[in-house]
Amino acid sequence: MDFDRTYDLYRRQVEKEIKKVFPKRKPGSLYMPADYILSSPGKRLRPVLVLASADAAGGDINTCMNAALSVEMLHNFTLVHDDIMDNADTRRGLPTLHIKYDISTAILAGDSLLAIAYEYLLKDAGAKGGRAVSSFTTGLIEVCEGQSLDKEFELRQSVKVSEYITMITKKTAAMMQMCCELGAILAGAKTAYIQRMSDFGRNLGIAFQIQDDLLDLLGDSTSTGKKCGGDLIEGKKTFLFLTALKNSEGADRRELELFIRNKGIQESEISRFRDIFERTGAIAKSKKEIIRYSSIALENLNGIKNKEKREFFHELTFSLIKREK
Amino acid sequence: MDFDRTYDLYRRQVEKEIKKVFPKRKPGSLYMPADYILSSPGKRLRPVLVLASADAAGGDINTCMNAALSVEMLHNFTLVHDDIMDNADTRRGLPTLHIKYDISTAILAGDSLLAIAYEYLLKDAGAKGGRAVSSFTTGLIEVCEGQSLDKEFELRQSVKVSEYITMITKKTAAMMQMCCELGAILAGAKTAYIQRMSDFGRNLGIAFQIQDDLLDLLGDSTSTGKKCGGDLIEGKKTFLFLTALKNSEGADRRELELFIRNKGIQESEISRFRDIFERTGAIAKSKKEIIRYSSIALENLNGIKNKEKREFFHELTFSLIKREK
Repeated sequence: MDFDRTYDLYRRQVEKEIKKVFPKRKPGSLYMPADYILSSPGKRLRPVLVLASADAAGGDINTCMNAALSVEMLHNFTLVHDDIMDNADTRRGLPTLHIKYDISTAILAGDSLLAIAYEYLLKDAGAKGGRAVSSFTTGLIEVCEGQSLDKEFELRQSVKVSEYITMITKKTAAMMQMCCELGAILAGAKTAYIQRMSDFGRNLGIAFQIQDDLLDLLGDSTSTGKKCGGDLIEGKKTFLFLTALKNSEGADRRELELFIRNKGIQESEISRFRDIFERTGAIAKSKKEIIRYSSIALENLNGIKNKEKREFFHELTFSLIKREK
Repeated sequence: MDFDRTYDLYRRQVEKEIKKVFPKRKPGSLYMPADYILSSPGKRLRPVLVLASADAAGGDINTCMNAALSVEMLHNFTLVHDDIMDNADTRRGLPTLHIKYDISTAILAGDSLLAIAYEYLLKDAGAKGGRAVSSFTTGLIEVCEGQSLDKEFELRQSVKVSEYITMITKKTAAMMQMCCELGAILAGAKTAYIQRMSDFGRNLGIAFQIQDDLLDLLGDSTSTGKKCGGDLIEGKKTFLFLTALKNSEGADRRELELFIRNKGIQESEISRFRDIFERTGAIAKSKKEIIRYSSIALENLNGIKNKEKREFFHELTFSLIKREK
């Protein structure tokens, strides 16, 4: 099995279908802005997780394509509303929705992405309706709670590493968890199997987010498309930062405390902070945690009987934690 | 049967349960703002419609209380997001959510109201899951489309009366339609019966909204809690305005066209516009349309076999179109 080819096969099917969602709907004042974000290019990781999870559980991916589209819509709903809250001007090199249009249009386009997500989910939910819709709704609730904690942490002076893990579990991992669950549910898998895929998605999601924090600091800005050290400039209390703070003393600690008071640093200070993160072992600890969560994720995959389909998820895990963007 | 007593019985049960939704949930940064709007006093019309509709179809209202709460959460979700889009500072005499907190908090609290609405709906949906959740989702989609049309009409020079009816059907009536459907679905009613209750809710909703426009102009500001003529000051193209425009000529027409260009009028001009609406027959036409839509609504109630329960809906219809706030 060629991982890239298989991933691309899933992704291309999603891409083909997702372009059809909005253009035919009226009013255009609502659905054109929604289409602007939904059609913009991306990895389509979440719908691919749904399809691959259904596939691995022996299901037919054609019977969960609408559910796969629904998670991508849910994901885009969070992007649109988060970008307003975060005052973000660009996403993937394009103007964010509230910049291209205005805040009102973006709020409403986000709402409609969520509404149409439920419409699509219900097309596939059928007899397994209750469980699939519950799983989706739990994912939605967690992502709202995660975003709220993220905003709360921006204002708080002190945040524990464990609180940070709770936040990213809700904000990032819960949706990947839900995608893996959804595929298995719609494929008619048994409860214990669904649970293992659910655990896989959550652990993968946590590893994915810590990796994201690390990429922001160490990644090549030409491949990430983001400014290197952007989290530091914005004053984000990431896993790296909180770990460094916990492990630091003396001058390093004072610098990190100043970072909190000043809500971030200047671009010229990034390399000094990278050194602090190195010295305090925060970078090493991040790498260790990424390995730890993805190892648990890999173990969670043991329920997948088909070797080739199991290997797809193995490679997916490796590709996400090795990724450069 | 005493209508007021019965309404109040439904309303008090909703009030009792709705206060329990958010206080126990964490994080408080998300759910306290959501509770602020959900707990603020109101008519609770939409959940009462769910309960009364289930009751009239022979169902047990205890088996659809969560669904009733879910429609009130959906309604409050729309209020929170609409208030941001409309730049509204107060609602029911209290500061709106984005004024009391900030826009980010209000966007997210609105999102969480919708998320928890689905959670509650699913508690009651059970075996009838698919249909109830579809009905709810359609209501949600229509309310987004209606709000989008409303914002679009603010920017457009020309809007037809029929387009206005489409807009209020989606923005206001679709949710009342859904509430009546939901009660009947959860009570296990037959398709034809559900359809009639659905039609009732929609027609009632259209009458309700035209009445709302009329109240804004003619209502007593001490009982409505809104400034009299607020729609005129804000430049809203209401049923009254669009009808007056269609029927006017000469100086009246020029004034109405100036209203569009200037996006509204001064407070001192309200009584002159009231006279134009009177002269052009717009007020008479509004009253006629309210009667027409509520008459159709009353006919839609013929499916309700129990005389007392049918009369409750009759009286509800009368009370809404005679209301002063």
